[in-house]
Amino acid sequence: MISIVVLGAGNVATHLYKVFCKTPNVSVIQWYNRNLSALKPYKNEVAITDDLNQLKEADLYILAVSDDAIKPLTSQLPFENRLVVHTSGCMGLYDIDQKHKRGVFYPLQTFSKTAELDFANIPICIEALKSEDYHVLKNLAIAIGSPTKKVNTDQRKVLHLAAVFVNNFTNQLYRIAHEITESEGAEFDTLKPLILETAKKVQHLSPYMAQTGPAKRNDKKTLKKHLKLLKDQHHKDIYNLLTTSIQRTHGRKKL
Amino acid sequence: MISIVVLGAGNVATHLYKVFCKTPNVSVIQWYNRNLSALKPYKNEVAITDDLNQLKEADLYILAVSDDAIKPLTSQLPFENRLVVHTSGCMGLYDIDQKHKRGVFYPLQTFSKTAELDFANIPICIEALKSEDYHVLKNLAIAIGSPTKKVNTDQRKVLHLAAVFVNNFTNQLYRIAHEITESEGAEFDTLKPLILETAKKVQHLSPYMAQTGPAKRNDKKTLKKHLKLLKDQHHKDIYNLLTTSIQRTHGRKKL
Repeated sequence: MISIVVLGAGNVATHLYKVFCKTPNVSVIQWYNRNLSALKPYKNEVAITDDLNQLKEADLYILAVSDDAIKPLTSQLPFENRLVVHTSGCMGLYDIDQKHKRGVFYPLQTFSKTAELDFANIPICIEALKSEDYHVLKNLAIAIGSPTKKVNTDQRKVLHLAAVFVNNFTNQLYRIAHEITESEGAEFDTLKPLILETAKKVQHLSPYMAQTGPAKRNDKKTLKKHLKLLKDQHHKDIYNLLTTSIQRTHGRKKL
Repeated sequence: MISIVVLGAGNVATHLYKVFCKTPNVSVIQWYNRNLSALKPYKNEVAITDDLNQLKEADLYILAVSDDAIKPLTSQLPFENRLVVHTSGCMGLYDIDQKHKRGVFYPLQTFSKTAELDFANIPICIEALKSEDYHVLKNLAIAIGSPTKKVNTDQRKVLHLAAVFVNNFTNQLYRIAHEITESEGAEFDTLKPLILETAKKVQHLSPYMAQTGPAKRNDKKTLKKHLKLLKDQHHKDIYNLLTTSIQRTHGRKKL
């Protein structure tokens, strides 16, 4: 049995709380947030608090709080030499106050409050200073059904950066596709199977091998037609930059 | 029963040929390519030819050839007033010689020679000059199990353009993520569940609603850290342009 105190009440904290609650041999013994009202809906299932001095003794303290809050919050914790981890992709292990046993438990996935998430699809990137702490975190990740990755700080930071490319930036390309289709009265829905297939293709093929299209072929006529169709200069800039990027990768243009 | 002659031997032609062959009430009576060797593997299942003068009479001629070949090939066809369609996303209906009954049968999906495709996931965008021809094409799409969309030329061209954003450009973002993770010895594989979830999310949520991350939050510290991590100026340019794009969409910055 591992006893856990969760700190924070955002999307990551809430999803972790929920999955811990339904995991055998994992017990959330307390949930802290500086603003208690966010935790009120859970007050009948778990001890809640907004007072750091009331924190119970636990095997593990998981801070799922904003990046800036990690350092001050860990130094305010009124105990030492217990395992304290954060869930951030880009903060250091050493952003946790040195009086604690330190680790990182970074779930690499997009969290939103409403969507149901299957932790089997959420790799947990784990980092710890000591081997015994690493195993506590690894066993916890396994218990909730997640794949685990042992990473160092540089690897975790670069994964967080890469996640912005494949998640936020990709989603913005979907958004632009939405804008340009609707501007002609075409339906964005028509693109949904292609969006899914594009993501599925790189599950078994490298993005390099999966690439197709006018930029890779250097099909100048189509490239010109597309630029003419785009009315927004900002969309043209993105079209040009990503076309150049593809041609750079596939040897059409040296930069 | 609809009788079809397929023209061309690329990925689209091959996938269409295969799905037509297994569809009841659809019969491919001949397969044409200017270079016969590409069709040789099929010579025992279908009549093949490289001679336009040997083309059989059919209900429908489907040209899945390169964009530039559509115009000359349709004018060389030694008959008139039969239904002739192309499968291109960006060529006009009027690029087909006017002696024919004209239409477009554009499958909006990424085709590669090896991957198996389920036509249930391939919307067919249909355009025809005459209503009776439209219905022939629509019934054919339904027969192979595809969703159908009636589009005009402008809508089809804009869908083709939008497909470049959600497919080729998105895939290039995957490629960049591959490059930057491997540069630190992290594994691209760790990102695969996130890639899939990002695509799944917009199946039921608009890309606008699905957006998260440091650009949307205008989290300047993280944006700065990410730019510092990126070693390649070209990757920095993409990071900056897509961050600006997200902030433009979500009202952080007016351009």
